[in-house]
Amino acid sequence: MSERIYASYWLETGDDPARAAEVIAGEQSSGTFVALPNETPELKARSGARVERLEVLERVSAPSLPTPVQAAYYTRCRLELSWPIENLGASLPMLMATVAGNLFELRCVTGLRITDLRLPPSFAAAYPGPAFGIQGTRQLSGVAGGPLIGTIIKPSVGLSPQETAQQVRELVQGGIDFIKDDELQGDGPHCPFDERVRAVMRVVNEAAERTGRKAMVAFNLTGDLDQMRRRHDLVLAQGGTCVMVCLNAVGLVGLHELRRHAQLPIHAHRAGWGSLTRSPALGWDYAPWQKFWRLAGADHLHVNGLRNKFSESDDSVIEAARAVLAPVMPQAPMTAMPVFSSGQTGLQAAATHAALGGADLIHTVGGGIFGHPQGVAAGVQALRAAWDAARAGVPLELQAERDAALRSALGFWK
Amino acid sequence: MSERIYASYWLETGDDPARAAEVIAGEQSSGTFVALPNETPELKARSGARVERLEVLERVSAPSLPTPVQAAYYTRCRLELSWPIENLGASLPMLMATVAGNLFELRCVTGLRITDLRLPPSFAAAYPGPAFGIQGTRQLSGVAGGPLIGTIIKPSVGLSPQETAQQVRELVQGGIDFIKDDELQGDGPHCPFDERVRAVMRVVNEAAERTGRKAMVAFNLTGDLDQMRRRHDLVLAQGGTCVMVCLNAVGLVGLHELRRHAQLPIHAHRAGWGSLTRSPALGWDYAPWQKFWRLAGADHLHVNGLRNKFSESDDSVIEAARAVLAPVMPQAPMTAMPVFSSGQTGLQAAATHAALGGADLIHTVGGGIFGHPQGVAAGVQALRAAWDAARAGVPLELQAERDAALRSALGFWK
Repeated sequence: MSERIYASYWLETGDDPARAAEVIAGEQSSGTFVALPNETPELKARSGARVERLEVLERVSAPSLPTPVQAAYYTRCRLELSWPIENLGASLPMLMATVAGNLFELRCVTGLRITDLRLPPSFAAAYPGPAFGIQGTRQLSGVAGGPLIGTIIKPSVGLSPQETAQQVRELVQGGIDFIKDDELQGDGPHCPFDERVRAVMRVVNEAAERTGRKAMVAFNLTGDLDQMRRRHDLVLAQGGTCVMVCLNAVGLVGLHELRRHAQLPIHAHRAGWGSLTRSPALGWDYAPWQKFWRLAGADHLHVNGLRNKFSESDDSVIEAARAVLAPVMPQAPMTAMPVFSSGQTGLQAAATHAALGGADLIHTVGGGIFGHPQGVAAGVQALRAAWDAARAGVPLELQAERDAALRSALGFWK
Repeated sequence: MSERIYASYWLETGDDPARAAEVIAGEQSSGTFVALPNETPELKARSGARVERLEVLERVSAPSLPTPVQAAYYTRCRLELSWPIENLGASLPMLMATVAGNLFELRCVTGLRITDLRLPPSFAAAYPGPAFGIQGTRQLSGVAGGPLIGTIIKPSVGLSPQETAQQVRELVQGGIDFIKDDELQGDGPHCPFDERVRAVMRVVNEAAERTGRKAMVAFNLTGDLDQMRRRHDLVLAQGGTCVMVCLNAVGLVGLHELRRHAQLPIHAHRAGWGSLTRSPALGWDYAPWQKFWRLAGADHLHVNGLRNKFSESDDSVIEAARAVLAPVMPQAPMTAMPVFSSGQTGLQAAATHAALGGADLIHTVGGGIFGHPQGVAAGVQALRAAWDAARAGVPLELQAERDAALRSALGFWK
């Protein structure tokens, strides 16, 4: 074998960048703080991580992260390291410990962020990737083109199963494609998972029998492994078509095991992502992070939305969505469906479409649907009209002249 | 039920702190960005998160994290929130999504760090905690008092199983209590897990037959679930007494399932921890973080070491170790054993002992043992002598007068 794993970083160091790069490469492979007699040149050549690229970007006068080692200035660089796959085998957990292990706290590091990850084909052989992806999701939801128009049950928690089902009734009658639990809604005693699924699926199945099209509902089954398996089986038995899980809450083993068990698309929520990314000098870009989860089997991946209510910039949102749509590797695309949410209405359709060059996405909209003066059905229709316009390159105002629901929506979307 | 979950945060906001606190509480429970007709006062009272405490600490002129919302100043506070357990049930994954979910990226937040977590007894009923802990580890390793003197196989990767076993032979002949794989050493083709375990345990078992005391070796089984179970079973079958896993690599479901399966102590490595903690304005303190893993079953937890080679301060190290030794909750101590490592020698023994008020810990030392001029056995003996002195309140220099190995060690420890 001669496969290698490549990871790119944004690095800031008060040390000589070349030396810092070697320290990181050493720490994450055969190196130690102290020179060892058995760390032979042969061993280093075989097992050492390699500095593939080091490009100085700029110098700054203050360190981004607190450091016990003061320097006259701090150098920011692009760094690429590579590892022989022989060090770890094609293992996602071991990959995590290797590319994102004990390196953020190194003394020579005053900033470190993983920006990219390139994996050899062995990983695609070892992991299944999404079972459904875009095509499978379109098939199950009956949405051949354009985005799945979706929404989230609100309030997040507090509704009973019957109240939840009542909200779902309104939504499916309004022609919605996709509904999801909030990530906080699990299996609490006020809204037990089983009761919720039964009540909701009764409504969804009834509507599907009438209309021939079944709304996809992502039930949040986040929990311990046996719970997740049992809950998945219930959703399947009740005719449901999607399950949702919080990635950071269950971890890689959780998602991998769910994927092995599941016969339904896995809607992957990234709750907690902010803690991994919001410091610009620390943690993760979305592109490398989401690769782990796609290899492990995520079908849908959250990417926030344009002009969202959080602190993430539009550029970052689009970069994340493009990453989800890009192949994990040339030999294994494993494409997942990006999920846009947070403060969304039809006003973001054109820009979202233009930035992605397509509409292979789930667009979840709350107030922009529920707030429609003519009700939920008109809200869903307005969203669809906005997306039709975006896909046809027609200005929203022009489309509104032909579509009454969109016309009304433009009065309150903002 | 009337149990509540309490989480404390360090919060920085450009908004009115009271309003920001309510936004966070709302986002993580029944609230939404848009007021909803069905978010009734009864529902909020039942399901809303509650602001228990908000204490302003200081005002600063610049935000710690990038924010799209500029303010005249930013207020730093201590915030405590509470949730009714009914929202989520006693579920560690759902707890993660609740206390550390979509809140770090909120617009009103320019800094957010979880500093504490108090859990109701339901969690102790739902999760097993460590199966071995301090007492079980002492029993298996035959170390009745004082720390387990340990070390890490080095180089981290690159040695063959036979070379690894040779290093272990030297260590057990030297009387070491504890040896661990590096977190990068998994199941690569140059050093397959099974071969490594067989080769190492042959050496360890032979020595145990001679001496009556078996060194504890923590084999890193980090991987997918089936792999971890199978590897655990091999370690057990070969007479091994410990397995090691990287927490951030396998996640909560990974550790929980390993604990359910395991009949050996679980040595929990925190590789990647730096990405969660090194920005002072973002992420996690160790105290709340390690509670998750102790509930899920970690027996040993890494805490870095005094005067370590990383960027962590001594105060932070001691706080982490104290957290690991403190009860998870009064009704369920679930105490784990802190693991001190990184640049350690006997010089840190007295200060470590004084800060913890005891020696219930694993002290892993590399160069401080291997570098001893009289060899490994003298290195181990020097460490023990340093700890004997620390526990007896005897100055190191005085102890060195009575102990030749320690006397030599003082010449090269620094």
